Amino acid sequence: MDWQNVLAARNGRMKASEIRELLKLLDQPDILSFAGGIPDPALFPTETFRDAMTEALSGPASGAALQYSVSEGYLPLRDWIAGRMAQIGIPCTAQDVLITSGSQQALDYLGKLMLDPGDTALVTWPAYMGALGAFNAYQPRYDRLDPKGNRTSADIAEAAQADGGRVKFAYLSADFANPTGETLDRAGREALLDLAEELDIAVIEDAAYQALRYDGEPVPPILALELARKGDLQECRTIYSGSFSKVLSPGLRVGWVVAARPVIQQLVLMKQAADLHSPTLNQIATNHVARAIFDDHVARLRTTYAARRDAMLSALARYMPEGVRFTKPEGGMFVWLTLPPGMDAAELLAQSLKTERVAFVPGRAFFADGSNGNTLRLSFSCANAAQIEEGMKRLGRLLSSVGARSEAPVAG
Amino acid sequence: MDWQNVLAARNGRMKASEIRELLKLLDQPDILSFAGGIPDPALFPTETFRDAMTEALSGPASGAALQYSVSEGYLPLRDWIAGRMAQIGIPCTAQDVLITSGSQQALDYLGKLMLDPGDTALVTWPAYMGALGAFNAYQPRYDRLDPKGNRTSADIAEAAQADGGRVKFAYLSADFANPTGETLDRAGREALLDLAEELDIAVIEDAAYQALRYDGEPVPPILALELARKGDLQECRTIYSGSFSKVLSPGLRVGWVVAARPVIQQLVLMKQAADLHSPTLNQIATNHVARAIFDDHVARLRTTYAARRDAMLSALARYMPEGVRFTKPEGGMFVWLTLPPGMDAAELLAQSLKTERVAFVPGRAFFADGSNGNTLRLSFSCANAAQIEEGMKRLGRLLSSVGARSEAPVAG
Repeated sequence: MDWQNVLAARNGRMKASEIRELLKLLDQPDILSFAGGIPDPALFPTETFRDAMTEALSGPASGAALQYSVSEGYLPLRDWIAGRMAQIGIPCTAQDVLITSGSQQALDYLGKLMLDPGDTALVTWPAYMGALGAFNAYQPRYDRLDPKGNRTSADIAEAAQADGGRVKFAYLSADFANPTGETLDRAGREALLDLAEELDIAVIEDAAYQALRYDGEPVPPILALELARKGDLQECRTIYSGSFSKVLSPGLRVGWVVAARPVIQQLVLMKQAADLHSPTLNQIATNHVARAIFDDHVARLRTTYAARRDAMLSALARYMPEGVRFTKPEGGMFVWLTLPPGMDAAELLAQSLKTERVAFVPGRAFFADGSNGNTLRLSFSCANAAQIEEGMKRLGRLLSSVGARSEAPVAG
Repeated sequence: MDWQNVLAARNGRMKASEIRELLKLLDQPDILSFAGGIPDPALFPTETFRDAMTEALSGPASGAALQYSVSEGYLPLRDWIAGRMAQIGIPCTAQDVLITSGSQQALDYLGKLMLDPGDTALVTWPAYMGALGAFNAYQPRYDRLDPKGNRTSADIAEAAQADGGRVKFAYLSADFANPTGETLDRAGREALLDLAEELDIAVIEDAAYQALRYDGEPVPPILALELARKGDLQECRTIYSGSFSKVLSPGLRVGWVVAARPVIQQLVLMKQAADLHSPTLNQIATNHVARAIFDDHVARLRTTYAARRDAMLSALARYMPEGVRFTKPEGGMFVWLTLPPGMDAAELLAQSLKTERVAFVPGRAFFADGSNGNTLRLSFSCANAAQIEEGMKRLGRLLSSVGARSEAPVAG
């Protein structure tokens, strides 16, 4: 059978993810990997999850833990999330919360909710490649989201119309972004909200890393800033996507969306049709663990990851040759390197795996237009200080050997 | 904000599911519900799952159980599934198996894989309403799948082209179907394969209930019959969708797809982009439980559900007035009633909830064209013999009171 005869057109946009393929490298023990954007499994609250599972699967309620449940999600967990949202400036109720199977599913659903083929999605340049992957299935056009840039909303809207669609949303990771580690400041967030108002579009705030701040002053979530303007969540155009993946466990696939009621209601219908509901037991266990240890656990993660970030920034400052720039993140898991123009990080990775055995993610896949081949992402979340020291030393040696030296190192 | 301005066209096809709304009725203790197509939670192997979770979350491998994992699914579980498939006439390897978050996700992904707007999906009349819900997001046209019918493949293809698309697949639940409880015989399966060859389309075999046969002779899976014709899974056009939901636990959301490599590979890419992977721990625990107790547990389910089916068929024969026909399923969870022409099962349900407090699912939602309002689905899986006796008695009383009496009862 020639399967091309029955495939939908959207399959042409669904390609293998470089990150997912790279994860397979982690199995090779002699590789020093700074590639995967994954939490350190040694920091998982395994015992608390085990207690939660034992409790959920004991006694008269144990049947319900293995049974079908409602598409909206487990109510006590949605209650806990609503309380957590209030703490960060977004008072809401469980009715405003939908549980998703990780924030990746939220991105898929939001693309499905809003994108007709040819519509425009505004995304940062670079953006989380998994968001581009999720949106690609709905065949969008991409344009660059730059809240502090010079293009007017009219220019952006006209370009979208010229290509036969409409701008539907702006997507960004505002805090310690994947892949850059950078945080959009308050003025940038306000400018983004102004732009969204002018374009009459939604804003998708991907907050996967928001809780992992190591220093500096917290910036209010975009949804909190919009709520401060409008006074009512139901009037807001910002859709907040949260996740337990980076702070409790990614393998359980529990995330959430907070948004105005018409969005939540339509996403519930979509989830009913697409997978009925996220696993019941996972939600019950996550609720148990979040209520038991969330703040203490996040504090512990912050201490550990901050030390690793410090080790990486220190080693980068010492080992990177001239001409290599890197960001200085105040949280999250990533540092973003810009190599001299003309260098190609994908070629560098191939070379590195041969000679230095250091892994990272070439930056091109994070750009909707596949540009900026001279960038790469490093993750410090799963490496100890000695590994970071050795890895950055090797990477610096490699970069020096291939001739990166045109500018002085600049953090920014 | 007017959300209509940013919603994609596909949202017009995504409607609330009658079944999901009806599930909320189960919380009312005085309702005798035969509505939900759900397994009896009293039969879940809760202790075995608890042991599995405890083991997975203890010792050095516990971090991996809470970590990200590959989109294809947990290899030992895929190995077990491949062994199970071989037992039912479909020898294959783990490479031919993709883990999904329940078979509902498989249906969503298969719609996404194949349907462009206006393409035709052939579905049984009636069909599982959750399949129609999943496919609706991809804006298909539906046509009636009737392997034993008189329409030629040329007629079917021409009708699809006249509406601007192409026939992409035939979808059916071949064993103890939801909603009818009926099983397509071997000649029907062969005729279906002939039709699929002529149309050059895929076949989606929804096998959610296949393991739950109570009597009669097993009919080979459609994929097994195609494999017997072609000798190589890679040449087959049938896509097999399996699930642990009806036999181990629906709440963990673990299902699988077996198909030719081009389908599996594209579904893996789709899953990477849509939710990264199904929860790691759920797959590990399901593997543990399946290896420990699958055959014994299914045997126990068969004994219990068979007795409930017998009780329901016996009560229906005694209490249904003339003019009401019902199926005699050899397995699964459902009996399908056809009321006299002109009766409306949705109105009957409203009346029943007021006076008799008996719940069922009106049949209209199972028909792609919303026809056949005089049908309804009963599930016997969650009721004991006394509840079934009382429920059918009340239903018979209600039907008699509204005047069903035009024909003699016929099973078939």
